[in-house]
Amino acid sequence: MNYQFLNHIASPDDVKKLNIEQLGVLCDELRDCILETVSQNGGHLASNLGSVELTVALHKVFDSPTDSIVFDVGHQCYPHKLLTGRFNSFNTLRKPDGISGFVRPEESEHDTLISGHSSTSISSAEGFSIANELLGLKGYSIAVIGDGALTGGMAYEAIINARKKDKHLIVILNDNKMSISKSRSALAKHLSTIRTRKKYHKFKMGVEKFLVKIPLIGHSLRSFVFKVKNMLKNSIYDSNIFEALGFYYMGPIDGHNLTTLIDMLEIAKDENRPVLLHIKTQKGKGFALAENDPNVYHGVSNFDKALGVDSPKADSFSAVFGRKICEIAERDNTVCAITAAMPDGTGLKEFSARFKNRFFDVGIAEQHAVTFSAALAKKGLKPVFAVYSTFLQRAYDQIIHDAAIEGLPLTLAVDRAGFVGEDGETHQGLFDVAFLSSIPGVKIFAPSNYDELEKMLEIRLSDPKGVAAIRYPRGKQAENCHDTHYIGQEFNICGDGNSAIVCYGSLFDTVLAAAKELESVGRSIAVVKLNEITELSDNLINSLLEYERIFFFEEAVFKGSVSEALGCLLLCNGFNGEYYPHAVNGFVKQNTANNQRREFGLDLDSILTEINEVI
Amino acid sequence: MNYQFLNHIASPDDVKKLNIEQLGVLCDELRDCILETVSQNGGHLASNLGSVELTVALHKVFDSPTDSIVFDVGHQCYPHKLLTGRFNSFNTLRKPDGISGFVRPEESEHDTLISGHSSTSISSAEGFSIANELLGLKGYSIAVIGDGALTGGMAYEAIINARKKDKHLIVILNDNKMSISKSRSALAKHLSTIRTRKKYHKFKMGVEKFLVKIPLIGHSLRSFVFKVKNMLKNSIYDSNIFEALGFYYMGPIDGHNLTTLIDMLEIAKDENRPVLLHIKTQKGKGFALAENDPNVYHGVSNFDKALGVDSPKADSFSAVFGRKICEIAERDNTVCAITAAMPDGTGLKEFSARFKNRFFDVGIAEQHAVTFSAALAKKGLKPVFAVYSTFLQRAYDQIIHDAAIEGLPLTLAVDRAGFVGEDGETHQGLFDVAFLSSIPGVKIFAPSNYDELEKMLEIRLSDPKGVAAIRYPRGKQAENCHDTHYIGQEFNICGDGNSAIVCYGSLFDTVLAAAKELESVGRSIAVVKLNEITELSDNLINSLLEYERIFFFEEAVFKGSVSEALGCLLLCNGFNGEYYPHAVNGFVKQNTANNQRREFGLDLDSILTEINEVI
Repeated sequence: MNYQFLNHIASPDDVKKLNIEQLGVLCDELRDCILETVSQNGGHLASNLGSVELTVALHKVFDSPTDSIVFDVGHQCYPHKLLTGRFNSFNTLRKPDGISGFVRPEESEHDTLISGHSSTSISSAEGFSIANELLGLKGYSIAVIGDGALTGGMAYEAIINARKKDKHLIVILNDNKMSISKSRSALAKHLSTIRTRKKYHKFKMGVEKFLVKIPLIGHSLRSFVFKVKNMLKNSIYDSNIFEALGFYYMGPIDGHNLTTLIDMLEIAKDENRPVLLHIKTQKGKGFALAENDPNVYHGVSNFDKALGVDSPKADSFSAVFGRKICEIAERDNTVCAITAAMPDGTGLKEFSARFKNRFFDVGIAEQHAVTFSAALAKKGLKPVFAVYSTFLQRAYDQIIHDAAIEGLPLTLAVDRAGFVGEDGETHQGLFDVAFLSSIPGVKIFAPSNYDELEKMLEIRLSDPKGVAAIRYPRGKQAENCHDTHYIGQEFNICGDGNSAIVCYGSLFDTVLAAAKELESVGRSIAVVKLNEITELSDNLINSLLEYERIFFFEEAVFKGSVSEALGCLLLCNGFNGEYYPHAVNGFVKQNTANNQRREFGLDLDSILTEINEVI
Repeated sequence: MNYQFLNHIASPDDVKKLNIEQLGVLCDELRDCILETVSQNGGHLASNLGSVELTVALHKVFDSPTDSIVFDVGHQCYPHKLLTGRFNSFNTLRKPDGISGFVRPEESEHDTLISGHSSTSISSAEGFSIANELLGLKGYSIAVIGDGALTGGMAYEAIINARKKDKHLIVILNDNKMSISKSRSALAKHLSTIRTRKKYHKFKMGVEKFLVKIPLIGHSLRSFVFKVKNMLKNSIYDSNIFEALGFYYMGPIDGHNLTTLIDMLEIAKDENRPVLLHIKTQKGKGFALAENDPNVYHGVSNFDKALGVDSPKADSFSAVFGRKICEIAERDNTVCAITAAMPDGTGLKEFSARFKNRFFDVGIAEQHAVTFSAALAKKGLKPVFAVYSTFLQRAYDQIIHDAAIEGLPLTLAVDRAGFVGEDGETHQGLFDVAFLSSIPGVKIFAPSNYDELEKMLEIRLSDPKGVAAIRYPRGKQAENCHDTHYIGQEFNICGDGNSAIVCYGSLFDTVLAAAKELESVGRSIAVVKLNEITELSDNLINSLLEYERIFFFEEAVFKGSVSEALGCLLLCNGFNGEYYPHAVNGFVKQNTANNQRREFGLDLDSILTEINEVI
């Protein structure tokens, strides 16, 4: 792509050289480049289009990396990447070895802490600011956080911890009304109240500036001025939660007006206290389709710019889950669905429309979601918390403390379990097996196909006891997937031989394919497919003791995995054969999910190679 | 104990029969009984003494269990226990099979969800309230939460999620200035601002009541009244964060004045919207020693009421950690210490006084603590987050996302690892091994005695790389503990034989004692003590392959344990012997730590029995 200015921005220094008109053109170029790239590679679109002017203004006013600009979640970091030396490689966005879709320090000194989960930015910014002070370093710390991320409790922990005296801490609330979709949200209401008070805050700022400028001559005059100042302060202060919790509040201002943004950032810089600058932006700004339907264009796969994105795939585990839970809820009015700001991604859109009073979108608040659900369960309801594996990590303590100790019938629908592909290190669904199975009494079911997902959900919700998770992968079931006739059995054994491959979930069809290929060359091997992966029964162990060699392939971190547990059990039960467990060691970089499987020896070729080498 | 009223309170119904003078006497009796019992059994004292009148008022006004009274953390639930049929068994407080020191539904229908970790009560109360609505049940849901617990982010997730229309949700902020000790806390400052605005809120409430009473006759008059109402509302609303986030705020009121409390609770009941009632109480109320030093009397062991509690034990792992980190910080000014509201418990009091600018008490905010520490580490500092094992569960996601993916040098000083005794199911330090070792690259060191703790801390902080935890138990090292000469070696082997016992941490001395006893009857057995429990090296495995039988004893949940990992590794490496791993299966009820070890087969007798049976 060939742009008048963007092509020549090698670092933020080049942004500073441009005048306001040129910066305006640069904004257009950034939008065009982002739209072009995301329509080809997929990625986060609407929020990045909304943060173009803000990012240009930030790099005009601040000096990264001396100043640390921390983008929360990273859904709005593409303009930042394009202005910090990554324009030429931006076409590799989300590709193997390419530019990450999230903040990634490995890529650039301008990226601070890695980011992909929500509500961490203010904590990071405070850490940077204090570290600078302790180390005698210069630099502002600026957290850029959306109103959606402000529904996560961790952000408040950080807000409360901001030091009143911190001269170098600036929080920018990029308010694009993400949290508005949650009609009940008190935060959304509060933000909208603030939004309408513009005049009032303008007045307040005027008064403040005026007071600062009064020369302090003589004791009595000084005392008088202080009194007036305090009086005014008391009447105009604490008008919103940020002021109440110690920030100097500025705004709300138009987040697409470069001049205003630059002015206000300069003012924020000169305040000798922590500042919260509230800016209003439009998600999808500059691309009509995204402006009109920002949720649909929040995160997208590649699409045709003229035609727009395809309607959500009906062919996915999420969609099947969404349909099935509606079917069950139709019959059973104690079934409730809970989501943490992911009604679309988890397939709960239909449920939210049809069973309004039993549907709860709690915002990006996984901790609250679990404890709230536990309370519903305690009262006799059947809560199902649908959540991506990676985000459920936030609620580990609540699953233990509020649900599992009492054995409450909480059901976790764990979506995006296993490799998730392009989103990279921060989003892989590889920990749920380890952390969930560490909790006494928690059961994990692992469907391999849609039919199993439906039956497991059906069986589980007919009489839920204790905490149980049903974990299923991102995307579709295998093509021509094997019919497993699931009716509640702990495991299935297909075929026979001296050796066996154990697996579960989405890897089953791959393993089955491997077994078929081995059989075709006269090397029969049994396939043991687990349906319930936490309670490895004596029955299972006894069945496995018969084999000479056992292989295990699974999409989960190895430490705490099912294959590790099985290995120990086999040894304790006197298994004399050979054991070859294969799971994931290490963090997983962005790539296609298939390539990720290959990288960790879990695709068809790797499985065949491994078995052929051993046998 | 023989009291005029308390002996006859079999249920909250009996509270309702008493008049205000009698209730006053009942309060005195409750205080006396709590003080007597806690001075003998240990437990939470100051906060329970502070919540006596509140609890009496709650049971006078509300109908538990139809109304759900949710006590956050459970540090203030003793008066509630005494009024809900547990007076006669209260002398078993914190004893084996006795009354729990926390909220425990197993004990009584008046206890809602189990509780022991902070900031969950509002989430629970909202769940109960919505469940009642969905199920067509009557009942108010009342969360009782301290100002300390309001420093946990989860509380805000719940506050944001309260439904504006909820007629049956009441949050009682029991403000005993716990969070005040954190001088930087914006929350503490805000609460104290509110405290001084009593007149203002009284006026506001008067206006509200007045407006409600105006008869609405005729259209124009109605419209006029609405306009006045709105004008007044706008000028007086949103004066604190609770109002800003959708609660009707009442208070602050004297939380020791029964009449006021009962009146205000009655008013709160009649509001057709969620109410936050702010009450001011004094920690330790009625017991001078505790009033004067509420932090010391927050949680205590048994003590002499006349003499007061002993000064904190200098002889404990926490104290040794506290001394050593000061010694290191004296030499190395990049060492920082972080605590989540536990400066005393974690032994950081001296550090907080000597290295003020490198000490951070973030409140009950483990999530923020980890991400904040990660940012410090990123900038080149050496943060040490000292935290109880059980509370670290809250920060699992942040350890993965903000520290481990980037391999930042965050040090976790994991205190109270293993059995913790009387605090019961919610507080055992048994999950850290499983959840920490599931994270790629995280190292765990397990000192068996003070000397090892000091050396491990010394070695770690001399050149920290990646995330590492040092986990040590509650209390003291073993008497006459074995000198292990730790200089960084992964493991030690003591003695020899055909069999070996593997162990780590605090169980080492017990295992050594078992080995000695076995040797004395001519059954030599080797003891393999692990110092670093996450990376089980080839060297270790090869050493172990030589034995015919391997036993493993550890204080951690079995699933995800070191013994499980070792079992799998042994099998994969062709170990042909017998393997007997012993760890903890299930949640652990209150008991002495020694009894807990016995219950799970981890004390000296159990170890000897197991080995004698096998060999």
